[in-house]
Amino acid sequence: MDLREQMIDLGRRAKTASRALTRLSTDQKNACLNAMADAIEAKASEIQEANAIDMENGRAMELSTAMLDRLELTDARISGMAKGLREVAELPDPVGRILDERVRPNDLKLRKISTPIGVVVIIYESRPNVTADAAGLCFKSGNATILRGGKEALNSNQIIARTMTDAARATEPAFPEDAIQVVPTADRAAVPELLSLVDYVDLCMPRGGEGLIRAVADCSKVPVIKHYKGVCHVYVDGDADPDMAREIALNSKLHRVGVCNAIETLLIDQAASAQIPGLVKALLDKDVELRVDEQTKAALNGADDDASIKDATEEDWSEEYLDKILAIRIVDGVEGAIDHINRYGSGHSDTIVTASETKAAQFQNEVDSAAVYWNASTRFTDGGMFGMGAEIGISTDKIGARGPMGLEELTSYKWLGTGTGQIRE
Amino acid sequence: MDLREQMIDLGRRAKTASRALTRLSTDQKNACLNAMADAIEAKASEIQEANAIDMENGRAMELSTAMLDRLELTDARISGMAKGLREVAELPDPVGRILDERVRPNDLKLRKISTPIGVVVIIYESRPNVTADAAGLCFKSGNATILRGGKEALNSNQIIARTMTDAARATEPAFPEDAIQVVPTADRAAVPELLSLVDYVDLCMPRGGEGLIRAVADCSKVPVIKHYKGVCHVYVDGDADPDMAREIALNSKLHRVGVCNAIETLLIDQAASAQIPGLVKALLDKDVELRVDEQTKAALNGADDDASIKDATEEDWSEEYLDKILAIRIVDGVEGAIDHINRYGSGHSDTIVTASETKAAQFQNEVDSAAVYWNASTRFTDGGMFGMGAEIGISTDKIGARGPMGLEELTSYKWLGTGTGQIRE
Repeated sequence: MDLREQMIDLGRRAKTASRALTRLSTDQKNACLNAMADAIEAKASEIQEANAIDMENGRAMELSTAMLDRLELTDARISGMAKGLREVAELPDPVGRILDERVRPNDLKLRKISTPIGVVVIIYESRPNVTADAAGLCFKSGNATILRGGKEALNSNQIIARTMTDAARATEPAFPEDAIQVVPTADRAAVPELLSLVDYVDLCMPRGGEGLIRAVADCSKVPVIKHYKGVCHVYVDGDADPDMAREIALNSKLHRVGVCNAIETLLIDQAASAQIPGLVKALLDKDVELRVDEQTKAALNGADDDASIKDATEEDWSEEYLDKILAIRIVDGVEGAIDHINRYGSGHSDTIVTASETKAAQFQNEVDSAAVYWNASTRFTDGGMFGMGAEIGISTDKIGARGPMGLEELTSYKWLGTGTGQIRE
Repeated sequence: MDLREQMIDLGRRAKTASRALTRLSTDQKNACLNAMADAIEAKASEIQEANAIDMENGRAMELSTAMLDRLELTDARISGMAKGLREVAELPDPVGRILDERVRPNDLKLRKISTPIGVVVIIYESRPNVTADAAGLCFKSGNATILRGGKEALNSNQIIARTMTDAARATEPAFPEDAIQVVPTADRAAVPELLSLVDYVDLCMPRGGEGLIRAVADCSKVPVIKHYKGVCHVYVDGDADPDMAREIALNSKLHRVGVCNAIETLLIDQAASAQIPGLVKALLDKDVELRVDEQTKAALNGADDDASIKDATEEDWSEEYLDKILAIRIVDGVEGAIDHINRYGSGHSDTIVTASETKAAQFQNEVDSAAVYWNASTRFTDGGMFGMGAEIGISTDKIGARGPMGLEELTSYKWLGTGTGQIRE
């Protein structure tokens, strides 16, 4: 088989498996998930042996220390995968929820019911534990998964997937073994081939850096749900409580700097410029490098001779630093903040700090982002924090899921019509 | 400006307008819709003059009679546009619905709220009345629209859009005039340019024949919601009441033959083969040409010497006839029907006729289509029949809207978080 035939075969198997998945009950699915968790723990040493080969190859490929760290399946990560699968088993089944119900004048009963999406392709970088996490969530939501990790993790990914499918099959003979497949080749050309298969693949979810995600979105003929980056904002309004503004800004920037829901720009109302020296001092005390506009500099009143205070350029407003760097800009009230965010932001997570309900309502209505907060940290945009139990990623798209994606966000729906012989007059 | 710059300008204006639309109240939107309706009636003769130019050009281009018929804006179609806009004004606002609400342990309040999608491109063929229908529905749901009709209808489409925006602006000064725009050029290269503008366009909805829709889906970099075709089925189970089966089959095929929710294939359970002679006779009596498989022919017991009974080929199972032609195939029970439909169908609308609740449940669960009926005609898949009030089209996609698309299906959502200074620990 050439590469295209190989991908068609993979897609066709996944589609067939996705049909079989609709016949599994919730109890059967949960039994499979628990069996998968047990097997991952029982086969930890085999999994780690395969992972050791990937690590050795990775060192030979001269991967960075950070990449090697992400690649390694430590005991804690093995336990983490098993724990994650057991948690998914405990969550409610997202399939079969009645989303709408109506009886038409002719007594035709209509129900809008959540369904699996079908076949989901997950493309990700070096963390092999994503294999278990993503496959578990997709399986619980009744979707067949095709997993494409980094080439450096191929051995690890394959043994994790095989461990899961073998265990599920042993527990539940109706489990379709093609429900979880790993793309068996490291050939880069496999991705565009796979994402051209509109008859077999229903959705692609890439996870990773902006470069990976843009490349996937650019070549895909199937729908892609994604976020490119997280350029998030805290806006401190003139009516903000200074202590609350400072705590929210610090938390949104510094709770974890390398994540998509951390802020990259702090916007400050002209009317709140008296707060600037205090905010700047608090940030400098935490070793944050600042990129400030002219007005902010002016508001510092000469107290700007710190090496960590630099002039912001136009590029800073759309930069995702993922580091202890923060851009600061003065804007003209809530409208100025909304304009700035809708222009430069990434539609991820943004916060207004204000005592004014009117301004908060305007900000929450007009900022076109997946999560818009009033008086809370941007760091809450997360499946766990939202009470979804687990998340497969965060979407800044507006078709399909938006914001944190848990099990419900991995479903579609269909309409069921039940009649007694109704025909259209 | 070259074509690309022209499309960027169009997209940027639409994006700006979409922001302004979020500030209009429901009452303001409804006042605009009613003013648009009044203006279309008041300016009927000007609209018909522009339409006469398109008709004249169309005749010079030697358009078919059918196309010229669709192009013509008769008095009835003018009234129809106005009536449609007034009906949309009466429908509930789909924006701002609370889809979910939860309070987290830290007292952070989360609400999942329906929002406009943003900027929607509608691509359609010759009916200029679609301009008013689509723009009205998009406007009510808070979306800015970019309309791309057929080149033969450009004058008609432009005057309809201008009539609507002028009237809305006169009634409501906050109405952003770029909320409804018509692509000002007939250049075919405009479509791929427009659909590459991922920063400005949020969704494309093509309406028309399969060729148009495939071309759009193939070139688009923005999400597309669509259905290629409607290959719909009635499956007559061994437990079906013969009268009900016949009525549903006839209605699903013949109520209107040129529409996407009409059936193209009738599937009959082996156990119901005694029903075949009666079903075939009823169809032949209505002048339906039949394409039958070997087993169906055998079940006719020699009564197959009618010129309207032809042998089915493999191609017939996926053919959308849109005509008085029906393929018939015997299948092995409900599982055979499900396999056939999931393999050859288009994921649109399918019906099982049976007295068995168990078989109906299996069929409704496993048939992977937008609407799956039990004992009812496939012809009910329609926004009006579903009680949506109006529809902009039908989707067979699984990401975003599926099935009939009314106002609610033209919305996205976002999460609003309301706190009192919560930060992440």
